[in-house]
Amino acid sequence: MEAAEYIDSQTRDFFGQLKEWLAIPSISADPARHDDVRASAGWLAAHLSGIGFPVVEIWETGEAGAPGLPAVFAHWPAADPAAPTVLVYGHHDVQPVEPLDEWDSPPFEPAERDGQLLGRGASDDKGQVLLHSLGLRACLAAGGPAREAPPVSLKFLIEGEEESGSPHFAGLLRSRAAQLGCDVIVISDTTMWAADVPSMCIGMRGLLDAEIDVYGPDGDLHSGSFGGGVPNPLHALAGLLAGLHDADGRVTLPRFYADVLPLSSAERELFARLPFDEKAWLAEAGHSQAAAGEAGYTTLERIWARPTAEINGMWGGHTGPGPKTIIPREAHAKVTFRLVANQDPADVAAGLREYVAAHTPPGIDATVTFGGPGVRPCFSPIDAPAVQAARQSMALAFGKEVLFTREGGSGPEADLADILGAPLVFVAVGLDADRIHAPNEKVEMDLLLKGAEAVAYLWDKLAAVHL
Amino acid sequence: MEAAEYIDSQTRDFFGQLKEWLAIPSISADPARHDDVRASAGWLAAHLSGIGFPVVEIWETGEAGAPGLPAVFAHWPAADPAAPTVLVYGHHDVQPVEPLDEWDSPPFEPAERDGQLLGRGASDDKGQVLLHSLGLRACLAAGGPAREAPPVSLKFLIEGEEESGSPHFAGLLRSRAAQLGCDVIVISDTTMWAADVPSMCIGMRGLLDAEIDVYGPDGDLHSGSFGGGVPNPLHALAGLLAGLHDADGRVTLPRFYADVLPLSSAERELFARLPFDEKAWLAEAGHSQAAAGEAGYTTLERIWARPTAEINGMWGGHTGPGPKTIIPREAHAKVTFRLVANQDPADVAAGLREYVAAHTPPGIDATVTFGGPGVRPCFSPIDAPAVQAARQSMALAFGKEVLFTREGGSGPEADLADILGAPLVFVAVGLDADRIHAPNEKVEMDLLLKGAEAVAYLWDKLAAVHL
Repeated sequence: MEAAEYIDSQTRDFFGQLKEWLAIPSISADPARHDDVRASAGWLAAHLSGIGFPVVEIWETGEAGAPGLPAVFAHWPAADPAAPTVLVYGHHDVQPVEPLDEWDSPPFEPAERDGQLLGRGASDDKGQVLLHSLGLRACLAAGGPAREAPPVSLKFLIEGEEESGSPHFAGLLRSRAAQLGCDVIVISDTTMWAADVPSMCIGMRGLLDAEIDVYGPDGDLHSGSFGGGVPNPLHALAGLLAGLHDADGRVTLPRFYADVLPLSSAERELFARLPFDEKAWLAEAGHSQAAAGEAGYTTLERIWARPTAEINGMWGGHTGPGPKTIIPREAHAKVTFRLVANQDPADVAAGLREYVAAHTPPGIDATVTFGGPGVRPCFSPIDAPAVQAARQSMALAFGKEVLFTREGGSGPEADLADILGAPLVFVAVGLDADRIHAPNEKVEMDLLLKGAEAVAYLWDKLAAVHL
Repeated sequence: MEAAEYIDSQTRDFFGQLKEWLAIPSISADPARHDDVRASAGWLAAHLSGIGFPVVEIWETGEAGAPGLPAVFAHWPAADPAAPTVLVYGHHDVQPVEPLDEWDSPPFEPAERDGQLLGRGASDDKGQVLLHSLGLRACLAAGGPAREAPPVSLKFLIEGEEESGSPHFAGLLRSRAAQLGCDVIVISDTTMWAADVPSMCIGMRGLLDAEIDVYGPDGDLHSGSFGGGVPNPLHALAGLLAGLHDADGRVTLPRFYADVLPLSSAERELFARLPFDEKAWLAEAGHSQAAAGEAGYTTLERIWARPTAEINGMWGGHTGPGPKTIIPREAHAKVTFRLVANQDPADVAAGLREYVAAHTPPGIDATVTFGGPGVRPCFSPIDAPAVQAARQSMALAFGKEVLFTREGGSGPEADLADILGAPLVFVAVGLDADRIHAPNEKVEMDLLLKGAEAVAYLWDKLAAVHL
């Protein structure tokens, strides 16, 4: 039986199972729902055992006295011990549902409407996890009666704390690294461009956050007595911040672009083919917005594939009503840098320290404090064998060319790649219109089925290439 | 009898009278002391009548239902109707006295100690008002028995709300302009350089205050989704603020320096002769301070005679703990400009509007709001006849060359010059060390007597020049 035919035959069962799982209110941010998160892990573990996974484990997280929420691990080795190992990542916890009165139907009573399935978690991420179950069964069915195992050694790691900031995830990866060993990681927790424009995300930006603190006089000075004769910390900070970019919108930190992997012409060409409505995108930002940024790049290139420096906040001196004629003693700013492959947050941190030291005027002291080590960018080149395999699988399922996107944001996915030492491939069928994290979350039911079909092809294709 | 000899003979009486006046706690900022402010006005009116002023009036201020505090006006016409008219300005209200426990003796029980008179108002400004009474009597005595009136037509205007921001003063000047008509205004409410360095202030800076409000997106944006592709209001504001000065520390507003009266080489030379200890001045500002400002000028020139732009406060975006990856919707700054002769606050305001409009990037809206019309600078050239007359009078009294200073701050004195249309001359013997506005305010008793001697000479000298 062909994979597509198998999937057709299973559609009602598949959505019945998904609705059962969605009915469990596994809100990880709400301590009152933690038993539900555990029930959700239990449901998934039973389901995976039921479809044939020989190894299914519930992995507790946290410590005695401060327990975390469980992840589900499953493993189905390939018949061929030389076959590559693939780890599928997703999560089974969901976002809170407030405000409840904005939902058209109760968030944990999944409802079908015009080809959409409504309910918390339908798109983020239970629907996209469960499509792997259906896809795997279709893959097995398509292999004929002789196929008793997937063509790749398949591992699932479905965490239960993603919507709470994954506090134990990196620790879990490290302590379970031996069991999690893999050649490629498939992430099904993102979106594609549009229902009629299948696409794959191939990178996410990294992040570094810092606070710059600037100090001048020992106390606020009277600007009549001192104004014009001593440096003003607010001027100094404004200069430091304004100087972060040159006239071309490029970040001026030393060595900031040294390790940046340039956009390939193939990727730029594929980005350019996305039907991007810049006016509509700007209108989302605000009524008077204009495109702006690094010279020589399109908006999509700027927000996906180029590093940035943003001031997120600043304050100092008199901020109450009316004037106050002071030279204030101090000024502060919070800045973040979005990073792209192959920038290292530690190098950018060193560059920022150097920049601030070099541009702080005499009579002013400035310090730079980082919130943490930062988040590394992640990126898979479009010509990587696993990316090509996924692209071909999606193209087969959708019957269309598959384009590429990146994400401008940053996520814990980079931890997966770093700690497990394997490349990432994002195979996902969510849409920006799915209202994830908001009332009336939905998923397009036919896209879930297309996703299942894509992964039904993917394991064979991955088994055939050298990863 | 010589003026100096007369003053010597009156010393005990003079300080006895001053102590009597200082004992009245005329704190204008404290409603519980308003009867004392009225008593202080009554004491001065009786005193001025007692020494011979033919016209003495107590001028109430404010309105029925919202009364202000009274000023004292006195007028003693010259015998010669062609003699110039001089208006002496000072104030009889005093600052609050908290913290009381830091006073070595009670603030309203004036005490003599080592040639100093301690008490609230001793220097600011009752002592410096009363020296005019003694000076005038010395002038009359020095003129011999035939002199029954001062050589100039002398008017005193001693207000009662100076330490409360002079809320009714400009209105009083306007409504009483006919009675206050004069050829020159003598201000005795400032300081000289040092006890052994007699000096005259010849100018005060003006002031304009503004708020710059910058708006971008309709709400805070996620910097992962939009960062690098749309303008950031904090960047825009930092750019506007950093750009207020060029590399030479000059303010970049259009036409900002167009009307600035250049420092004369004579004034620069006299400033340079002041024994200014820059290191000590910087240490007052803070332990790590360095001199900074407009290229080509000394610190005293920068803070007294050159206009400035200062950022007094700025804020926007996330200012709480931790990072927040936003492009904020708005950013704000408070700025003030110190102005010098002959800048007009209205012209500077127009220049700021123009500057902000020209340097606001596409996609950002910026508005500029002014706190009021601003304060005009005031200035009397050192070669003005009245300034020369005062300088010679002080030089005679002190037996030393008299140098010149300016004040970097701004005061209501400019209102006097503007509304009455007469030039200002600052004749004062206060010191920066007098602890005005602080506990243990004092005045140097011999400086008050030197001041009285100087004004004893001043009226004759002013009568002799063409004003």
